Amino acid sequence: MILVIDHEEVRELRLNRPPVNALSPELIVAIRQALEVAPREGAQALVISGAPGRFCAGLDVPLLLTLDQPAIAALWHDFYALLRTIACSPIPIAAAITGHAPAGGTVLPLFCDCRVMAEGDWKIGLSEVQVGLPLPRVIFSALSRQVGSRQAECLAVGGVLVSPPEAVQVGLVDELVAVERGVERAIEWCNGLLELPRHAMALTRQQARADLVRLFDHDLEAELEEVIASWWSDETQSALKALATQLGRRRSG
Amino acid sequence: MILVIDHEEVRELRLNRPPVNALSPELIVAIRQALEVAPREGAQALVISGAPGRFCAGLDVPLLLTLDQPAIAALWHDFYALLRTIACSPIPIAAAITGHAPAGGTVLPLFCDCRVMAEGDWKIGLSEVQVGLPLPRVIFSALSRQVGSRQAECLAVGGVLVSPPEAVQVGLVDELVAVERGVERAIEWCNGLLELPRHAMALTRQQARADLVRLFDHDLEAELEEVIASWWSDETQSALKALATQLGRRRSG
Amino acid sequence: MILVIDHEEVRELRLNRPPVNALSPELIVAIRQALEVAPREGAQALVISGAPGRFCAGLDVPLLLTLDQPAIAALWHDFYALLRTIACSPIPIAAAITGHAPAGGTVLPLFCDCRVMAEGDWKIGLSEVQVGLPLPRVIFSALSRQVGSRQAECLAVGGVLVSPPEAVQVGLVDELVAVERGVERAIEWCNGLLELPRHAMALTRQQARADLVRLFDHDLEAELEEVIASWWSDETQSALKALATQLGRRRSG
Repeated sequence: MILVIDHEEVRELRLNRPPVNALSPELIVAIRQALEVAPREGAQALVISGAPGRFCAGLDVPLLLTLDQPAIAALWHDFYALLRTIACSPIPIAAAITGHAPAGGTVLPLFCDCRVMAEGDWKIGLSEVQVGLPLPRVIFSALSRQVGSRQAECLAVGGVLVSPPEAVQVGLVDELVAVERGVERAIEWCNGLLELPRHAMALTRQQARADLVRLFDHDLEAELEEVIASWWSDETQSALKALATQLGRRRSG
Repeated sequence: MILVIDHEEVRELRLNRPPVNALSPELIVAIRQALEVAPREGAQALVISGAPGRFCAGLDVPLLLTLDQPAIAALWHDFYALLRTIACSPIPIAAAITGHAPAGGTVLPLFCDCRVMAEGDWKIGLSEVQVGLPLPRVIFSALSRQVGSRQAECLAVGGVLVSPPEAVQVGLVDELVAVERGVERAIEWCNGLLELPRHAMALTRQQARADLVRLFDHDLEAELEEVIASWWSDETQSALKALATQLGRRRSG
Repeated sequence: MILVIDHEEVRELRLNRPPVNALSPELIVAIRQALEVAPREGAQALVISGAPGRFCAGLDVPLLLTLDQPAIAALWHDFYALLRTIACSPIPIAAAITGHAPAGGTVLPLFCDCRVMAEGDWKIGLSEVQVGLPLPRVIFSALSRQVGSRQAECLAVGGVLVSPPEAVQVGLVDELVAVERGVERAIEWCNGLLELPRHAMALTRQQARADLVRLFDHDLEAELEEVIASWWSDETQSALKALATQLGRRRSG
């Protein structure tokens, strides 16, 4: 589900769960494990990439609708653990957003060090509200840190999806490149950091990301319980089922 | 003083105190009451609009200069109560800034959910300092939340008025539309939110605005006393009288 | 080392330590003293400027490499005292960034009220990491306040230097002007503030800068000890020596 490609000191983790890189429980755990293993195996920086046109479709809703309560509870605990692992990574992580990146596909890059997005007819944004999920607090906080309070309110409450140029403008991503250059540019960005005096870079990075790390400092169990309870509410279940039906039609259409 | 126009679920409150929609003590109380009544009467979202070219001129300084100390004290308490009502509204509020919006005309939209501004030769900005009023803390905090610390410092200290395109650029408003489209676009924006799963939208909105609501969490009496004392200082009184004279000349000129 | 030029109420402090206005221990102390003396001598606002093309090259690394431990410790204490003096100035300070402004040349303006930059082929940015210095916390905090968390992380960790147009875009400076207009525009900006009701302006300014002043509220001794220890680390010493060699070659080249 993940292709691991080493570009000298920079390790690329290419999401590889066709057709749209939707996040299954297994993929969520696999990404976290790959991130944790990388520095131990000598990687000095990481790139999370996807397929051309398909970075990551967010949670695999049709699959998740088949899961029972303990499985959904485990899923959300694992997803939060993944976000914490990205936020607290000892080495820099660049997201190479190679295509569509709705909901969870936008969440992962929020916790990375840098976000390069491929130009093209893709959508990115925290569309959780559109599918009936209140945006979890820790994700809203990371969004607000990244784009400021005004844009965060507007994007989150409306569940707004935007184009790559709009994403740069509001600060959801840091730069745009041609689609064939996405991964390459993310690797370059990492190598740029690795050319710097390492200790100075690492200490400055630690300080610059302290507010992001702090989001995971306190017990998130109460927040997780709310998120999980939300999942099973009537409104959310109807919206998720409507989405699954729509995706089914699109795939068979 | 307020035209109440229901567009299905969206209620428009059109300020209607000619010639410039200046805020009198009565209008301030009337806006708050209209905002509080709306959800009880079934409105699901609100639009605050003004006349074409005249959104709201801010406090009615010539009128206020005729008021005694208890009346001015009551005015400021009522103005803060209005800001709190906007910030804490259980339903979304869009500002349709249909024209000039200096000082108080900029303050009201700061506490709304969304700000659509009509294109045209209008001015918007927190010009309080220009008329001798130190910008009250709660207003500065809302400004800083909206446009960031750097822009907030620059705009507030200089009492800067800007054009609609500049207002978008610095984040004072969210989007520009043709003047005849202002109210329509604000209603559309509200309807966009109302099409979303309501509970998810409302919870995400509550979270996104928690920092704004928190500004009113503690006792603001001490701050209000400072604001009221400022009003009666020599510097402020001279500046306000100079403004009133200038407005009188303009009106009779 | 500093030319003091009074433009009526606005005092210009023109850095004058050829060839590049690098900060020596003496210049750091001299700037602070000039800032402290100015209001007592009747200045109502200040402009810090440099030579055309050379605003301030940051710390004079080749000179500093000749200093012993007590001298370096004193230097950093004096530099922090200078930043505190700028942040807490009772009168507004505009930076007229007349040319190159790497590292320390970017730091001083961060604590000013306003930053006007001359158009031209100059570089500005917090390049500390490039020369092996972890960006000190108080400087990172001021940067983050000014440009937001996302840009601050990106600029600081990468030690990124940018052109004047990029500096405006990311919020490192407030406006660009033709090089011959830099000082004039900064003086105009000061005079704009001085035309406002003084008490209202001063109180609003105090409030808008309270978060900047608060950075110096607590004891910074522990932070300073870290910064000083960093200076003497192997990595930092090698990077500083490499820079000094490179500067020596450029000067003799």
